[in-house]
Amino acid sequence: MPSEFELIERHFSRATPQATLGPGDDCALLTPTPGMSLAITTDMLVAGTHFLPDTDPGQLGWKTLAVNLSDLAAMGARPRWALLAASLPAADTAWIGAFADGLFACASHYGVDVVGGDTTRGPLNLCLTALGELPAGTALQRNHAVPGDELWVSGQPGLAALGLAQLQGRTQLPAELARRCLDALQRPMARVELGLELRRRGLAHAAIDVSDGLLADLDHILKRSGVAAEVFVAQLPPLPTGVDPLLARQCQLAGGDDYELVFSAPPDKRAEITELAAQLALPLWRFGLVVGTGDSRLRLLDADGQAQAFNERGFDHFG
Amino acid sequence: MPSEFELIERHFSRATPQATLGPGDDCALLTPTPGMSLAITTDMLVAGTHFLPDTDPGQLGWKTLAVNLSDLAAMGARPRWALLAASLPAADTAWIGAFADGLFACASHYGVDVVGGDTTRGPLNLCLTALGELPAGTALQRNHAVPGDELWVSGQPGLAALGLAQLQGRTQLPAELARRCLDALQRPMARVELGLELRRRGLAHAAIDVSDGLLADLDHILKRSGVAAEVFVAQLPPLPTGVDPLLARQCQLAGGDDYELVFSAPPDKRAEITELAAQLALPLWRFGLVVGTGDSRLRLLDADGQAQAFNERGFDHFG
Repeated sequence: MPSEFELIERHFSRATPQATLGPGDDCALLTPTPGMSLAITTDMLVAGTHFLPDTDPGQLGWKTLAVNLSDLAAMGARPRWALLAASLPAADTAWIGAFADGLFACASHYGVDVVGGDTTRGPLNLCLTALGELPAGTALQRNHAVPGDELWVSGQPGLAALGLAQLQGRTQLPAELARRCLDALQRPMARVELGLELRRRGLAHAAIDVSDGLLADLDHILKRSGVAAEVFVAQLPPLPTGVDPLLARQCQLAGGDDYELVFSAPPDKRAEITELAAQLALPLWRFGLVVGTGDSRLRLLDADGQAQAFNERGFDHFG
Repeated sequence: MPSEFELIERHFSRATPQATLGPGDDCALLTPTPGMSLAITTDMLVAGTHFLPDTDPGQLGWKTLAVNLSDLAAMGARPRWALLAASLPAADTAWIGAFADGLFACASHYGVDVVGGDTTRGPLNLCLTALGELPAGTALQRNHAVPGDELWVSGQPGLAALGLAQLQGRTQLPAELARRCLDALQRPMARVELGLELRRRGLAHAAIDVSDGLLADLDHILKRSGVAAEVFVAQLPPLPTGVDPLLARQCQLAGGDDYELVFSAPPDKRAEITELAAQLALPLWRFGLVVGTGDSRLRLLDADGQAQAFNERGFDHFG
């Protein structure tokens, strides 16, 4: 008769064709591809901090992996392996089964093997480590933006934050928009193909994924690259209709949890980037310009070139 | 003026000569050694489940890394890199500084680079992922024990559990023994050199580290290898004096948190193993025999060959 603990472990042990040795031993064993660099990232999702405690477990399973794959995407790495450590308040096997199904749906979508992990009792906490590969010396890093680069963002940043506002009763979205926003929040897509193609085609100098908010994450690029930026608000994706435009703009600029990619690219790549957008069926918006350092690291300009104020730059877990 | 969050991140960002790219980007970048397999493990330590909430932060930092390096040791891998994800209830910079010092003391002792991680707010939870390398096809696995193998254990299993009993007021140890037991509990050593040499010299068929208890972890080897074992209680390390022998025996057989290695080896390696013990200045005790499967997977025998009863096999987090 297996223990509850063993039953749980079984939920997380599936075939791992990409691993030399999968779950069940002291370590997993992986065989890195010769000549490739290994990209590795770890993210911890805490109930009450990163998600509402009553979040659907299937969606949470998907998201736990997707947010890590997004970090791999931002470097241009191909996702290959993941490990999950989970602290669970109770051995609720229905919850755990649904969570595992969501996790493995995401793993399957992106071609990732879950090769190991750890399960223990405690306040709900999910810590995932994801590994990917890319040719040595080709990673998209945060610190390579240069003055003259144009700034781009994928998709529709802000939808996830609108979804959260809807869940928290801070807004009442039209049904179709609500569905899209909740989907963005609860089942985010990692922009893996975009990252891979930007890296392969040599289109981007610097990249980051939008987890804390568009401006906050852009600011990480600027700080690490030692540059400043002008953001042309009118060139950002059109705001959705049927929602307070002030809220929508705030969500677009400062809302977290979108997992779109922001990247900087030289102007002579503009046509190739536009072509890539069409190939991936993923809108790419050219919304700003990298400039030399000046009085402020980030200037928001309206359609007339007038500076706009914006204080709420996003979410700092210890802010 | 850096935010509290940035201050915390700085505590965990130190030189990473073994990384291609260390902390501060979306991912860390590593360059695996050609021809080597990568061993990877992740362990989550939760306040109240794995350690007392008032545990000294420096000791906790050491232990958070050491317990993961122990998993690498049990495969015979050389530790190289680690990532730390931490959920912290408050931005207590003194606590965090002491924790980081303990973590990096352990990292430095074992030659590990902490290449990345994640810091967030929430109930105290520490999730570490450790990576090591070993030549492809040489890992010590749990499932390779065969009948006729002799069973060995390093060091003095049970001391950590006695230390916990002391902390919880369940026993009153003599001062010198108390010091040793608390040290075993709070600042465990990962048996990295032992694992490396067992693997390099081809001495062991199967290995595991003692995290849940000697018999419980031995049982993982037996189950995975499809074999049974006889444990000769009289051949285990002598129990410490000055403590109730029943408690000491229970801690030795079922106490967790020791991080000694248990391994199975063919009898013709006995002399080489004894020699290795002398070279490492680490006692290695031959305490049992692997046999074919029978009525029970694990039989405890006293000095006269009489079967002994033992029910408390260790700690199952969901048991």
